[in-house]
Parts: sequence; C-alpha cells; structure tokens
Amino acid sequence: MSLETELMAALGRVRLAARQLAQAEREQKDRAMVELAALVRERRALLLEANAADLERARQAGVTRAFLDRLALDEGRLEAMARGVEEIARLADPVGETMARWKRPNGLEIVQVRVPIGVIAVIFEARPNVTIDAGALCVKAGNGAVLRGGKEALATNGLLAGLIGESLERVGLKREAVYFVANPDREAVQLLKRHPEAVDVIIPRGGAALKEALQHSAVPLLPHFDGICHTYVDRAADLDMAVEICFNAKCSRPSVCNAMENLLVHAAVAPQFLARLAPRLSAAGVEIRGCPRTCALVPYALAAAETDWDTEYLDLRLAVKVVDSLEEAIAFVARHGSGLADAIVTEDAAAARRFEREVDSATVYVNASTRFTDGYEFGFGAETGISTNRLHARGPMGLRELTTYKYLVRGQGQVRR
Amino acid sequence: MSLETELMAALGRVRLAARQLAQAEREQKDRAMVELAALVRERRALLLEANAADLERARQAGVTRAFLDRLALDEGRLEAMARGVEEIARLADPVGETMARWKRPNGLEIVQVRVPIGVIAVIFEARPNVTIDAGALCVKAGNGAVLRGGKEALATNGLLAGLIGESLERVGLKREAVYFVANPDREAVQLLKRHPEAVDVIIPRGGAALKEALQHSAVPLLPHFDGICHTYVDRAADLDMAVEICFNAKCSRPSVCNAMENLLVHAAVAPQFLARLAPRLSAAGVEIRGCPRTCALVPYALAAAETDWDTEYLDLRLAVKVVDSLEEAIAFVARHGSGLADAIVTEDAAAARRFEREVDSATVYVNASTRFTDGYEFGFGAETGISTNRLHARGPMGLRELTTYKYLVRGQGQVRR
Repeated sequence: MSLETELMAALGRVRLAARQLAQAEREQKDRAMVELAALVRERRALLLEANAADLERARQAGVTRAFLDRLALDEGRLEAMARGVEEIARLADPVGETMARWKRPNGLEIVQVRVPIGVIAVIFEARPNVTIDAGALCVKAGNGAVLRGGKEALATNGLLAGLIGESLERVGLKREAVYFVANPDREAVQLLKRHPEAVDVIIPRGGAALKEALQHSAVPLLPHFDGICHTYVDRAADLDMAVEICFNAKCSRPSVCNAMENLLVHAAVAPQFLARLAPRLSAAGVEIRGCPRTCALVPYALAAAETDWDTEYLDLRLAVKVVDSLEEAIAFVARHGSGLADAIVTEDAAAARRFEREVDSATVYVNASTRFTDGYEFGFGAETGISTNRLHARGPMGLRELTTYKYLVRGQGQVRR
Repeated sequence: MSLETELMAALGRVRLAARQLAQAEREQKDRAMVELAALVRERRALLLEANAADLERARQAGVTRAFLDRLALDEGRLEAMARGVEEIARLADPVGETMARWKRPNGLEIVQVRVPIGVIAVIFEARPNVTIDAGALCVKAGNGAVLRGGKEALATNGLLAGLIGESLERVGLKREAVYFVANPDREAVQLLKRHPEAVDVIIPRGGAALKEALQHSAVPLLPHFDGICHTYVDRAADLDMAVEICFNAKCSRPSVCNAMENLLVHAAVAPQFLARLAPRLSAAGVEIRGCPRTCALVPYALAAAETDWDTEYLDLRLAVKVVDSLEEAIAFVARHGSGLADAIVTEDAAAARRFEREVDSATVYVNASTRFTDGYEFGFGAETGISTNRLHARGPMGLRELTTYKYLVRGQGQVRR
C-alpha cells in the first residue's frame, strides 16, 4: 500500500472519530485524560525501553548532546508528563461555551458557541512530551489529532501516541481520533499539506527546514516558527532592573523562540548600562555583536554585520545597537523583529504606553523578560505552541485556540424579505 | 515598469500608511467616513459617467443582463452607498477594545487588546459597491486595503477607490492606505498571493475561477466561496412554516451563497409537504431534481444525478431527497453540505437541539431561512463577506473579523526562573 493510500485511509478514520469526539461531554474526555496519566505510569518500563532504543540510534547517527537531552525520557520526565495530562483534565472545556448571544428585531435569536476545529495535524521535532501534550490538548478540545514527530523519537512517540488511543478506548471513545504518522518519509508532510479536506489546520513546531517544507500548504497553518525578540532599554530605564531582564531574556534558555536576539539601548544610558550588562553576558559565554557605538563602549564586542539584526541565533550570541530615541527603537523593531515578543524597560509611563501602542507584536512587554511568552506562564495551564501567525491565534496558544465557533440561529418561521 | 515592481512599490506604501492608520483614533477614522459619504454624493455625475462607460464596454463584451444589473449604478445606489458609509461611521471601533485582562501570581498583568490585522487584500467581482464597503470597513478597522475588482468595473471602481483616498487625506490620514489595483491582468492576483510580507490576508469573494487562481496562496485566505445549503423538513415540522421557509430559502435570491440548494424531507411528511411546496416552486420557475421517492411524489421532477447533491446551482433549480430519519439528514448534510448554512424545520425541541449540536456549519438554523446568513441580517451593521473558512472567522464577517489581537504584558522587573 502506498504511503498516500495508507495516510488518506487513516485520515478518513480520524475524521469520523473526531466527529464523535466533538460531541463528547467534558466528563468523558476528562476520564480519558485520567486514564492516559495512569497508562503513562503503568507502561513506564516499556516507554523507557523504547526511548533507550531511540537514544541509541540517535547517538549512532551522531546528533548533538543537546538533542539527546531533549529526546531522553526518565522516570521524572514521565511523571511530569502524567501530571501534565491530569492538569489538562482539570482545565475548563472550551467546547460548547457561549461566546455571545443576541436577539434581532425580527425575533431571531443568535448564539455563538465554541466548537472543535476538526482534525489538527501537529508536526514537531524531537521532544517526546509533545506527543502527549499536543495529543491530549487536541482531544480535550474535541479534535482529532494527527501527530508527526521527529524521526529520532519514532519508537518512543509511537508508544506514547498508542497510549492516547488506548485511553480513549477505555472510556468508550474511538481510538482512531489520534493517529501517529509512523512513516519517517518527508513525503508524509507533503501529503498532509495537500489535503485540506482531511486536515483542517497544521500546527508546525520547528525551524527553517519545516517552514520551507510547508510552503504553499493548501491546509491553513498555525505555525510556531521563529522569534527575533528585542529588548529596548530606554533612557528612563531602571538600570538594575534592565540588567536582570536582559540577562534573563538572553541567558535563561537561549535556544527557544522567546529568547532575546537584539538589544537596543538608548544612547543616554548606553555607557553605564553596557558597562554593567556586557561583563555579565560575557562571563556567561555570550558573544556580543555590536553597532559601532556599542563596539566603542564594549571592547570585546565584535562588529555586527547587517545580517545580524535579522538573525535568530538561538544561541549564546546577542546583537546590540545604540539608538537615539524611542522612535528609532520602535522603527527598528518594526523592521527587524519577527513580531513574537518585544520588550521595553522604562520608568517613563508615556514611553511605555507608546511602545505598547506602536510595537505590533503578539506579546509586548513593559519591564519584564520576553521569556514569559509561553502558555504556562500566561496561565493557560497547557501549551499547544506559540503562534507566529496574525490570524486566528497570536502568541501563546491554549485550549481555546484549538477551537472555532458556529452560530446557532433560532427562529419561529422567519424568512428574509 | 513591470507590474510586479509597480505593485510591490504600492504595497510598500500601503504598509506604511496602514501603520499610521492602525494608530488613528476612532474620531479621525469616522470623520474620514463622513467625508467619504459626502464625496460619493458630490461626485455622483462623474461616477455615473464612468459607470456608463463601463456598462457600454461590458455590453459590447456581451455579458449577461444580470451581470449588467450588478455593475450598474444610479442615483439610488450611490445614495445607498453613501448611507452605508455613514452607518459604518456609527459602528463601534473594534481597535483598542480590551478582550481579556488578568493577573499572574508573579504580578505580571496581561491585557489582550484588539488591533488591526495590517494589510488586507479584497478581491471581488462586478459590484462597484464592494469597493466602497470593503474599503471603508478596512479603514474603520485600522487596516490598509488593497482592492481588486472585476475588470468590467474598472473605471467606476477606480474612481470610487480614489474617493476613499481623498477622504483619508481630508482628515489628515495617508491616502496611500487604500490602493486600487487598476491593472486587469490575472497576474496581479498571482502576485498578491505570493507576498505574505506585503499582504496579511486575502479576502476573495468569487466563484470557482477565483478559488482556483488562489490555490497554493502563501498569504492566508478568508474566503467567501461556495455555499451548498440544506433545509431539512423534519417529521415534526409545522408544514405551513416549512413551505414559507423553503420557498424563501430557494427563491428570494437564488444567485447567492446562502440560498438553499438541497432540500431533505422526512418520509413521514413528504407526500403532504411536497404536494404543497412543489407546485409553488414550479410556478416560480424552479426546476426540481429529485431522488426516486421524490420523483414518485412530484410528477414533473427530473431524476437527480449523484452530482446534483454536490452542485451549487446558484439558480432556479433544487435537489430534493426524501430521508427516513433525522440521523440520515444530519449524515447527508455532513457529506454534501459546504458548511455555510443549514436549517431544520421542526416543532420537536429534541430534534432541533440534536441538529444544532451535530451539524457542523458556520450557521445552523432552527425554523428560519438560511438566507439570514449575512452581516446586515446578523446585526453587524456592515459586511466584509461571509467566511467559508473554519479558522479566524466563520460565517458573516463584520468589523471585528478584520482585527486580530496582541497581548500587553506589564511587569515590575519580572524574570523567568
């Protein structure tokens, strides 16, 4: 059987199962979550065995140590997975929520209610916990899920996805609602993007290669792609606070999308500020690439090339520019930012309000680290990804972002004149 | 200058002007609307002259009478346009609206606020009023607009779009925020869809050819495409009401997307019901294409082919099927409907609730005509189109659907642990 035949048959089963899941009551879906948490704990020996095999293959393929770390499971990570699913069981069910309700002069009553999107494909890389998180979130929001993980985690992810199916079955729902794409061919992604009748949305979580692979997708995307995040240290910044925020934004986890890549500093405070921040960054191993004025202030800074301002380093590297005004900072963010997360540090309320108004990013910060752009940190209790889209969902996505709505229109025989 | 060079330069100017417009206060945008209404009235002689030239060219090209009717302007239609714009001025401004606000345990305050989408391209066909409606709605919601109308209305639309620019200029906003694509080449549409950095969303309002032209768009679409709408007459229907609803859904304006294309009738009431409805439809010129049971009841019905159930006639033609149960009707709608508008006529509250729950369409009706799927009828005061998408917006779109949101995150130095 060809991959296409196999995949399309499976997607047909997902669609049918998703229709049943869309009608399921919260209580039944939550019982499935509780069963899933239990299964993750029950099967931990099997899961660790499969994961050990994945790790061995990955090691032989020569992946990096950081990659192996993301791929690896242990008892602690499995327990965290199980608890995460129990947390999802406690979240309110978005499905069926009344968003608005009004009456028209002709007597028609209109009710806007949340409904599942339908079938959601999640394409992700090495971390096996995404299989459980994404799968459980899709199920809780009443959607069918098509999960496609990195090829290095195939054994682990296949087992985990199977547990979701088993948990659905245990509570009387169709296990086919969650389908794991076990075929590691790139062709599978190409097939998914070509079938809008089978898949309602693709959530891709990955880098440039995935972005490239999903160009010209006939299926709408809710992408979790790149973040070129800025922090602007205003002339009226509390410099102690600014040092802490910038250090955190760059160093707490440089490999993620909400880490700072470009630092802008107002000329009036640049000498004092950089004299304090630069040594701390440097001590933490951060390479600084500066504009000429930065290089004049920080002797060990390298000269930034034009491309540096548009590069997502995802690494211990930072581009730094001295600017002469708030306006210049805002214009710089508009030109070089990716619209994910940008921050101002200032004690000047007017400057803060102007930055908030004029910076058009999914999350705009005043006096806080851009690292808070995250579903858990926003209090969503879970995370499906951070949308870099402008439509449907922007920024951190929780359960609600996995739903759409429909209008119920209730009449007593009304016709249109 | 090539079309691409010209278009991209214009889109760059739209983007800059849209940034200014995004920051404009309601009062200034509303003054532009008032000026626009005044301009439509002031320039009516010029507009009618341009329209007469368009009509003459269209006539020579041999278009249908219905087409000419949609294209034609007169004093009455111009006055309706002006009043529509004044109505838009009175609508609440969605921009800046607080959608949600909460505080995190770490003291961060998160505020979700509505913001414009950015630059919206609207691609439409012959009716010149769409130029004014779509342009004015985009402006009111703080967006730049790229307008591309049918080639037959080029002179009329060009003038109308110019009036929007003039009205912006009169109140101190940038006229470049609204750009009219005067080049009738199909290539223009292909260029628009290839530049997601220049256009944030395309709203296509048209038929199969436009749908085809926009396949593989790199820019997200909020399409207003086809509608295959059903009415299901339940065994517990009030048959008087059902006759009125069905006649209205089919005949009040058969050429639009919310008109009924497929009628389902419960077997228990089919003889009485069809005996009353069929002669009325027939007298109104409607051709009935029925399943075998329908044909047995309605002697002048033609036999429906399998393809009839999936065809959007947009004409005085109706496919009719007798079904044995509510479940069969719901399954039929899932299989053949386009998810735009579907109705049940019934006095049985349980059947109504089940239809509402299980039919997954943008608008689901109980005891009313599907023809109410429309921005004005929903009370939105205006209409940008009726989305046949599942994401971002579904069903009738008003001003809000032309916005997205951002999160403002306000701290006192918080960093992520």
